[in-house]
This record gives sequence, structure tokens and C-alpha cells, in this order.
Amino acid sequence: MKVGLLGHGVVGGGVRKIIDDGLTWEVRELEVKKILVRDASECIDPRTTLNADEILNDPEIDVIVECMGGLEPAHTYVRKALENGKYVVTSNKKMLATYCSELFDAARKNNVTVHYEAACGGGIPWMASLDRTRRVDDIISFRGIFNGTTNYILERMSREHSSFAEKLQEAQKLGYAEQDPSDDIDGHDVRYKVSLSCVKAFDTLQNIEDIAVFGIRNIREEDLAWCARNNLACKLLGSGEYYGDCISAYVMPVFLDNEDVFADIPLNFNAIESNSLTLGRAMFVGQGAGSLPTAHAVVQNIIDIVKNQDPEINDKHPVPVDNSRHEGCYYIRTADPSAFAGIKAEDISDTALLSRKVSLQEIVRLANQAEDDTLFIAEVRK
Amino acid sequence: MKVGLLGHGVVGGGVRKIIDDGLTWEVRELEVKKILVRDASECIDPRTTLNADEILNDPEIDVIVECMGGLEPAHTYVRKALENGKYVVTSNKKMLATYCSELFDAARKNNVTVHYEAACGGGIPWMASLDRTRRVDDIISFRGIFNGTTNYILERMSREHSSFAEKLQEAQKLGYAEQDPSDDIDGHDVRYKVSLSCVKAFDTLQNIEDIAVFGIRNIREEDLAWCARNNLACKLLGSGEYYGDCISAYVMPVFLDNEDVFADIPLNFNAIESNSLTLGRAMFVGQGAGSLPTAHAVVQNIIDIVKNQDPEINDKHPVPVDNSRHEGCYYIRTADPSAFAGIKAEDISDTALLSRKVSLQEIVRLANQAEDDTLFIAEVRK
Repeated sequence: MKVGLLGHGVVGGGVRKIIDDGLTWEVRELEVKKILVRDASECIDPRTTLNADEILNDPEIDVIVECMGGLEPAHTYVRKALENGKYVVTSNKKMLATYCSELFDAARKNNVTVHYEAACGGGIPWMASLDRTRRVDDIISFRGIFNGTTNYILERMSREHSSFAEKLQEAQKLGYAEQDPSDDIDGHDVRYKVSLSCVKAFDTLQNIEDIAVFGIRNIREEDLAWCARNNLACKLLGSGEYYGDCISAYVMPVFLDNEDVFADIPLNFNAIESNSLTLGRAMFVGQGAGSLPTAHAVVQNIIDIVKNQDPEINDKHPVPVDNSRHEGCYYIRTADPSAFAGIKAEDISDTALLSRKVSLQEIVRLANQAEDDTLFIAEVRK
Repeated sequence: MKVGLLGHGVVGGGVRKIIDDGLTWEVRELEVKKILVRDASECIDPRTTLNADEILNDPEIDVIVECMGGLEPAHTYVRKALENGKYVVTSNKKMLATYCSELFDAARKNNVTVHYEAACGGGIPWMASLDRTRRVDDIISFRGIFNGTTNYILERMSREHSSFAEKLQEAQKLGYAEQDPSDDIDGHDVRYKVSLSCVKAFDTLQNIEDIAVFGIRNIREEDLAWCARNNLACKLLGSGEYYGDCISAYVMPVFLDNEDVFADIPLNFNAIESNSLTLGRAMFVGQGAGSLPTAHAVVQNIIDIVKNQDPEINDKHPVPVDNSRHEGCYYIRTADPSAFAGIKAEDISDTALLSRKVSLQEIVRLANQAEDDTLFIAEVRK
């Protein structure tokens, strides 16, 4: 099977290396025929090209691997690949979550499939596990630490009692966080992954905007100090829950019991858990990023294509997001506590309070009303 | 695909229920045709029979599910099923680990396969994950909490500062431990699972006896008190490591850093981790026992057979166990400390010592020499 690589950075370089190294017979059946690079200076391999059409129109190439990142031109290239009857494997969660509906339609029309294990949880076989579990079970819910950057910042802040700004800077220096870290710290990266997980878990495609999102940009040492005093650990979780006629779907900092397995997930690891009827809770922990783990997931997807282990394109059960169905108690720190007085259960400090049990939709509504640039909200699960 | 069930207890009953309920189209393609029960009083379903041959010789039955437990007659029935050209799915680790070589040969000769996801880690998709990872990677090592009974006893002892005898009795009352708990507390149950994991992970079949085994029968409150003082948690782990020309394979209590993800695996859960070249560390946590999770694993294996996702029979790389290759520091409590004087790094108490870094083979040799009925040994991994 001949493969065309779009992108030769961290992930693309890893895919090329794994296929070129050919450790197993399954991998030796693959061949990287062409590699799209951005700049003539990268053309050190005879297979590289600066012209995407050379790859997208090559009749010998069966599979396109897209790991360029960003919306364009990735989206246009993937669409063209599908229209040309090529299978697509992508690690680009932002592009796929944004254009999922359109690209799945294009795949269906051209009798090919789109695979995206690497877009969601890096090396963790999360998508494959959902596919496998669903052969026997309905998925009731999932939750996960889907983002290593925020996991790093939260863990370091907790341990070293240091500020968000300091630890963000440290993560940037170490290359864990981008120079513009908004996608990570505001929860958008996790939102893309929750959206793709809902497709696999619940057969439903959602508008990204319908998934509630709270990030960690405003977290302060005092929030984590309260956590520590109550034997809780703070993690940014992405979650989905199935209610038959609707789902809840959200990204939110959660204060978890210190003895929850998720509380000890180390720095650069991701952890994702599904709950289903007969299997019960099943959790997967692995490297959520990095060249080789992510490339491993891409190569697994190419082998799925070779073995005709195509997933169904799962958008046959369209149900809306309704976050009124998820209820919890929330830690709320705000410049204007009066805005949340109606749901208060107890005061924590002059600026922080604990809510009574309330729906997530109500929290979203109050947070939008508050117009507070310093607002920090976390669900408390003791 | 028509299925014959041998055994209708906790696992067999769960398999019948999942197939009868037929939640997914994949499951609805299956049909339980006959069920072997032990006693006429169990013949409440028209499909039950007391005569195994009625199932084993039924030409309509393609797959035999063996979940009777014990060596005989399970072994004889499985062998006969294979000789009759039937696929076999078994949850019986003791029987399979004991007769692995013979049964794999019989399967090969009759062009069928033996599947055993449920024999090793209950509902955790451990075997499927090893198969999948190995399409791309070599497995370097694995380690796991493979036994819920001992995990329950160790966790309760640690929390409540209570004795082994007391917590064993409690586990027996709750139905977690058998009336004869030797297989669990002496580590034999985990040894069977390590043996089967070595087949999948390293392509090598081992004599059970070559796998080193240390249990928790002799553990005392003072051992766990030392653990707690050093911020360690005690878990009974099964492990395998690949060295190219040999493997190490062993079952042993391990004192782990409290922040190791394994330290917080809750009572009745199992956790298993593989480490491989490109994927790195990948961990799976789930229910290690119980009717429906284990039955889920059995049904997944039947669907693997339907989908022709047969694993290779992996004994093509026979290498010996050589536990001289695994080195560690060990906590040793013994009535005769002088027997371990040669490897002592420091005294912990009159009866306990910490060894210097030494090979596991040396520990096995000294433990055998010591002839100490109270001996307790754990590896210390800080």
C-alpha cells in the first residue's frame, strides 16, 4: 500500500521513520511514496515535493496521511484526496472536528473512509477501543485528560505552589505549549477531541460551539490551595454522557478525589475512560503527544485500511447536546459573587463559593451573564 | 455463528445473557445453541445438556466457549473441540496456561484458533491491545495488577492497618476470595496470566514453573507500615521483560512510589501496562473479574472469529526465562536475616532488611535456600 504524507514535522517525520524502519511485516507492506513539505530547504529526501497535487493526483497512492495541522490548506487537501477516492488518515483534530460533516459526506460518496486515532489522545488506542467496545456495548459516558500541556501546568502549579503564568512560561520553554497557548489553556483543543469522541462513542456529530468549554487560563494558587486542603486534585477533563434523546458534552476543570486514578496521571500522559453497559469502566493511559506515539497511531490506522478494518462512519444517530442533563456542584471564583448568589451552597472566601447541585447549562448561562474576565469555575467531585 | 457453552456459572451465564440480549448487530449474528451444565437442577433452559458430547460433536456449532474452570474435564473438552475443527474461546487461565503448547498444536493441525482475552485481565482488552500494538511495535516489557483479590486485601490492609488473616477472611465473606485462596495469595493465578501474556507479547511459550513467583501470604502490618513511612504502596505485580535472547518473567509484591498510577488502582480493578518501541508506555485499567465484564471479553473474541480477526498462534520465538537479567532492590523480612547477609544494604529492623541491587535469580536462590515459612519479599521501586 502506497502512502502520501502531507506534512513532515513532528508527526509526519515519525510516520516516515516508522514506515521506513519497517519493524513488522505489516509495516513492511507500506511504502511512503511522496512527502509534501513547505519549504525547499526541507527537500532532503528524494520523495519530498512542494506541490500537493503531485501527491493528491498520484493514482498509485491509496492513502493520504495529513499531519500539517491548521485548517487550511489541510482541509482543502483532505477533501480533494477523498474526492480522488483516497483513504485519509489525519492527526489534525482542529481541522477534522471543524469539517467533520463535510468530510464524512465526501468519504461516503467516494466509498473511502477517514481515520483519526492520532487526532484524539495521541498514542492511546482510544478510537480503536471505542470501535471495539461498541461491537458489543452501548457507551454510556466517557471522560478524559486529553491535553498534556494543561496537565503539565496544573500538576506543576499544585506541586510547587506557583502561578499559572510562571508554569505556562515554563511549558512554553520546554516546548509543551505553543507560543499562542489559547487553544490549550482555554480548552478548545480538548473540545475538538470531545467532539470527535462523541462521533465514535455516540454516533453523533455536533457543532463544536454546542460543547460547553471552561479552561484554566484564570486558575490561581488559591484555587489549588483549596483543592489541596480538601484532598482534591485539579484536572482539565473532557466529557460526554449519553441520555438516549440527547448527550451532554463539555470541557471543564474538575476537582477530583486525590485517590481517583485520574489524579495521578503523570505530566505528559493522557488518560481516557469509557463506561459501557457490560464492560463497565475501561481506562486507557498513554502518551498523548510526541512524535513516535502519535505516528504509531497513524500507522495503526493505515494498517486498519490494509486489513479492511474500516470503521463505520458514525453519524447515524443525530441527537443534540443538552447540558441541562448534567448536574454537579461547582467551585466558582469570581470578581462578582452576587452574580452566583442564587446557586450558592456555601462561601469559601470573599471571592469564591461552592454551588449547590445545579445543571451545567445553568452554570454556562450564569458564566456568560457574569462577563467576568477573572472567572474560574471547576466541578467538584468528592 | 452458533456457539456452544461449556459452563453456565458466573462467566458462562454472562455470555448467554449478552448473546441472548443481542444489543448490537454483531452480537445478533451469534446464537447460543447448547449449554453444558453440571447438574440436572440447572436444566432450566431448553438449551442445557448434561452431555458434553452433544455440544462437542454438533456439526452446527462453530465455536466452543469454555468457562468451566479447573483443569479437567475442561482440558479434555477443549482438546476434543479443536480436534473436531471448532474454534475455542476460553476464560480458563489455569487450564490454558498449563496445556498451552498441546492445545496450540491441536488448533494449528485443525486450522482453527484459541482465543483467551477473558483469561487474562477479565474485561480489559489486554490481549487485543497486545495484538494491535505488535502490528507496528516490538513489546519491550509489561507489568500488571492481574489479581483483584490480592489487590483488595493489600489495599484494605494498608488503609485499615489490619492483619492479612482478617482481610483475607473479609474478602472470602464478600466472595472476592475462594475458600481455598492459595492460587490468589501465593501468586499462582497471576503466574498463569503472566505466562499467557508472554505468549502474546513475546511469542514465547514458557513452562509455568520457570516463572518466578512470590505471593502475599506472609505479609504483615509491619511490612505495610514501612511502606507507608516511605511513601510507597504495595501491589502484587506480574511482569515480563524482553532481552532478545531471553525474557524475565515473575510475580512479586512491589513497593511502588505512591504517585505511580498503579498505586491508586481501586479495589476490584486490574491494571496492565505494556512498553513498546514507538508507542511507549500504554496502560489499560478495567474490571478484572465479574460476570459481565469477563463475558464481554468472551463475546469480543467470538466476534473476532466471525470477522476473521484471528491472532497468529504466537510461539514462534522460543526463548528461555532468565531472571538473572532483572535486577532490583528488595525488602526482605525473614526469621533468619543471616541467610541474606551477603546482599544486605541496610537493616530495617531485627527481622527486616533492604538488599543492595541484586538479580531476581539471586533472590529466588536465597529464598529457596532459606526454608523460612514466614519469609516475605517485595521489590522496592522508588
